[in-house]
Amino acid sequence: MNIIMVLYIIGWILEFEAMFMLLPTLVGVIYREPKAALCYLLTALFTFAVGFCLKVRKPRTTDLYMREGFATVALGWSALSIFGAIPFVATGDIPNYINALFEAVSGFTTTGASILSDVKHLTHAGLFWRSFTHWIGGMGVFVFIMSVLPLMGGSTLNLMRAESTGPSVGKLVPRVQDTAKILYQLYLALTLLSTIVYILCGLKPFEAVCISFGTVGTGGYGLVNTSIGSYSAAAQWAIGIFMVMAGINYSAYFYLIRRQLKNAFAIEEIRLYLTLVAVATIVIALNITGYYPTFGEGLRAAFFQVSSIITTTGYSTADFDLWPSFSKSILVALMFIGACSGSTAGGMKVSRVLIYFKELWKELSGMVHPRQVKVLRMDGHVLENETLRSTSAFLGAYFILYMLSTLAISIDNFDFTTNFTAVAATLNNIGPGLALVGPTCNYNGFGIFSKFVLMLDMLAGRLELFPILILFKPGCWKKY
Amino acid sequence: MNIIMVLYIIGWILEFEAMFMLLPTLVGVIYREPKAALCYLLTALFTFAVGFCLKVRKPRTTDLYMREGFATVALGWSALSIFGAIPFVATGDIPNYINALFEAVSGFTTTGASILSDVKHLTHAGLFWRSFTHWIGGMGVFVFIMSVLPLMGGSTLNLMRAESTGPSVGKLVPRVQDTAKILYQLYLALTLLSTIVYILCGLKPFEAVCISFGTVGTGGYGLVNTSIGSYSAAAQWAIGIFMVMAGINYSAYFYLIRRQLKNAFAIEEIRLYLTLVAVATIVIALNITGYYPTFGEGLRAAFFQVSSIITTTGYSTADFDLWPSFSKSILVALMFIGACSGSTAGGMKVSRVLIYFKELWKELSGMVHPRQVKVLRMDGHVLENETLRSTSAFLGAYFILYMLSTLAISIDNFDFTTNFTAVAATLNNIGPGLALVGPTCNYNGFGIFSKFVLMLDMLAGRLELFPILILFKPGCWKKY
Repeated sequence: MNIIMVLYIIGWILEFEAMFMLLPTLVGVIYREPKAALCYLLTALFTFAVGFCLKVRKPRTTDLYMREGFATVALGWSALSIFGAIPFVATGDIPNYINALFEAVSGFTTTGASILSDVKHLTHAGLFWRSFTHWIGGMGVFVFIMSVLPLMGGSTLNLMRAESTGPSVGKLVPRVQDTAKILYQLYLALTLLSTIVYILCGLKPFEAVCISFGTVGTGGYGLVNTSIGSYSAAAQWAIGIFMVMAGINYSAYFYLIRRQLKNAFAIEEIRLYLTLVAVATIVIALNITGYYPTFGEGLRAAFFQVSSIITTTGYSTADFDLWPSFSKSILVALMFIGACSGSTAGGMKVSRVLIYFKELWKELSGMVHPRQVKVLRMDGHVLENETLRSTSAFLGAYFILYMLSTLAISIDNFDFTTNFTAVAATLNNIGPGLALVGPTCNYNGFGIFSKFVLMLDMLAGRLELFPILILFKPGCWKKY
Repeated sequence: MNIIMVLYIIGWILEFEAMFMLLPTLVGVIYREPKAALCYLLTALFTFAVGFCLKVRKPRTTDLYMREGFATVALGWSALSIFGAIPFVATGDIPNYINALFEAVSGFTTTGASILSDVKHLTHAGLFWRSFTHWIGGMGVFVFIMSVLPLMGGSTLNLMRAESTGPSVGKLVPRVQDTAKILYQLYLALTLLSTIVYILCGLKPFEAVCISFGTVGTGGYGLVNTSIGSYSAAAQWAIGIFMVMAGINYSAYFYLIRRQLKNAFAIEEIRLYLTLVAVATIVIALNITGYYPTFGEGLRAAFFQVSSIITTTGYSTADFDLWPSFSKSILVALMFIGACSGSTAGGMKVSRVLIYFKELWKELSGMVHPRQVKVLRMDGHVLENETLRSTSAFLGAYFILYMLSTLAISIDNFDFTTNFTAVAATLNNIGPGLALVGPTCNYNGFGIFSKFVLMLDMLAGRLELFPILILFKPGCWKKY
């Protein structure tokens, strides 16, 4: 293990995090919260200092093999959360450090699962930082660093691979650094656009910025206890639409900008994703007729919840835990499917589910025509064995981790629905589940052990399992 | 599709079922239930007649390709249930045919999920037939026919493959027919042995026989409303032990008889299975201290429930729905794992879960040592790509079917725990779940549509998905 290189990169991560913390400091100054502003400033200085120390020893070789890339990303995200939690405690927004850490992990992993029952008393700086963590974690902090720094040699792909979502990493352009740059430009453009639209829909600028972070990062931390329920109908539609857009594979936007419309619409995953959103919305809207005064209101609530859950954002405009079982089951199914790979969303990703369907179909075809050799294709390209193997290993790992997590948190003796959906909501980076972790509840009731299990699930979900799991493999830490 | 051959085999199935029905007729005669005896006799005659008609046209070719083998088994099991349900209605034991069909499917698939709230008023013939269906379905009716009839040419392996459990079909001896014979001899021996032991433990002969059918077939239909709770402590221990034995890969018994002890103990799956039973029993026993007067009683209840759930039998001595969440989560996890392949149990099978662990480990190893070529082994043999592929296709299919089934039955608007564990309990052929389908409840509350979904799940679970799924693939019915 190239420990010095790993520490060097984590040093960079912390220095960047320190710079990010200057923004909530500024918010504290603007909203005349001197104590909060000072806390964020001092934490920023401290974080920068630690980062600086980690960078003192320059690595002799910048090579990063796969395991090192994966371990670096996992440790980098942990460091990000450990330092990101400090200001919550310092400002008094969340006095308990474990809770603050839960909130920070939940923020960076764009989960949006909160331990707060009441966000009214939070400082503006704290509210901003909560939402900003979504934005930082959404596209990924390593991708960010790669986009601005010519940091490493040719081994950056392993970092990108660990942080990007989906079964295969598509480089948009030959160089990793250029790909990272394009991704962040698109991400910024979407953030700006949604902020402007939200302001036009009646949100205050501060609200618009924070909700925009939560939308394009598919996070889900709200600014008021009713999440999005108190905003205008127009704003709810707009947020719903931007969530759907945030769940789309960014390659599509890249193709659109290059006017390669044909390429953009050829992506099977996106077609299936949009179909799922449409079908689920209509079915739920029909199922909840009677719960709302007009069909239009029901349709809005259904669309908002579907787009919030499938993109694993976790905003809510209604307490969907009160909806009929059928609607709730659809939402739980969408929790697992998630949105597109190459987006900021969590879950298994539509492309993986699509691959499972294709593999099943191939298996059945093989039974009907045993002598036929069938090759699996996606978007017109042959699916490589490597991709298929890692996709099926993903499902196995997911199943095992799911089972062990549910088992672990059940020691707190909550009901099965709570335990099952708490793991679903954290491992898939959604936020709210059902029952005791439903949209009007929070995660504070869990014990410390369970909170750590759920934090691990959030990190494992965001980094798509393997970077976190590899830390537990003994050989990972050995020298070559 | 060689339709004539398919019908010919189903004809055989029905003729055999008719002969099986003579046993409950005899029970009716012994217990002086003339109406019931007559009903079973007439149904037997009718079933035989239908079987005879199906066999009138002799197939010109006896070739059975994979799809035909799979479809035949799926249709054969459906026919078995459709005719097996008739006497329940005729005797008045279960007046509604849909409910009777549910009970028959649940019986043959060794699920043991009942729609009856009260079994006290059933005829002895009916009780016997309910338990006997477990025995017929346990080792498999096709395996039975193969063991007594030199029915078909060389294509019998496809029938055996569809009906046997586990990721790969191990022939014990070179000829399929001899393998089937050995399996049934072992099955009979285990049935006899357990019957004798149960009688020694104080059960009446009728009880001993029926419970023995339910044990070695891993079914779970009880004779009284308290399932096994009213029998002596010794009987409960004995039944628990025989359930564990019924969940062991039959290859092990074969090796034991041939005194190849080394081979028997080399089976990794069995070692993991027994470890799981031991660990789960001890952990649950510790977790439920306080629920029982003595540790011994808690240990007995824990062992019984663990062995009943992991072997997917479904007997109960206690209402485990009242146990702490942690114990319930362990039981739910065991529901999915199931017992060994090559046994009569349902669930995913320990060997599949073992393969998922090995694949995950290999994937992580590949990340740590990218240039290392690692081969997966089980029991010292290299796992073939074919096995690995079908094992991962199984998990994908399982996940998809699970999601769709939960979605489908949630239209009845029961709570999430009920829906989720109802699918778990039927797809894994267990019987009782939690909440409204818990050990003291039954499945009668579901609507007709949901009952059909759950029947499909039971058949899909017993035949390990693909034989049922292939029926829905259009190409399955085309000519070559």
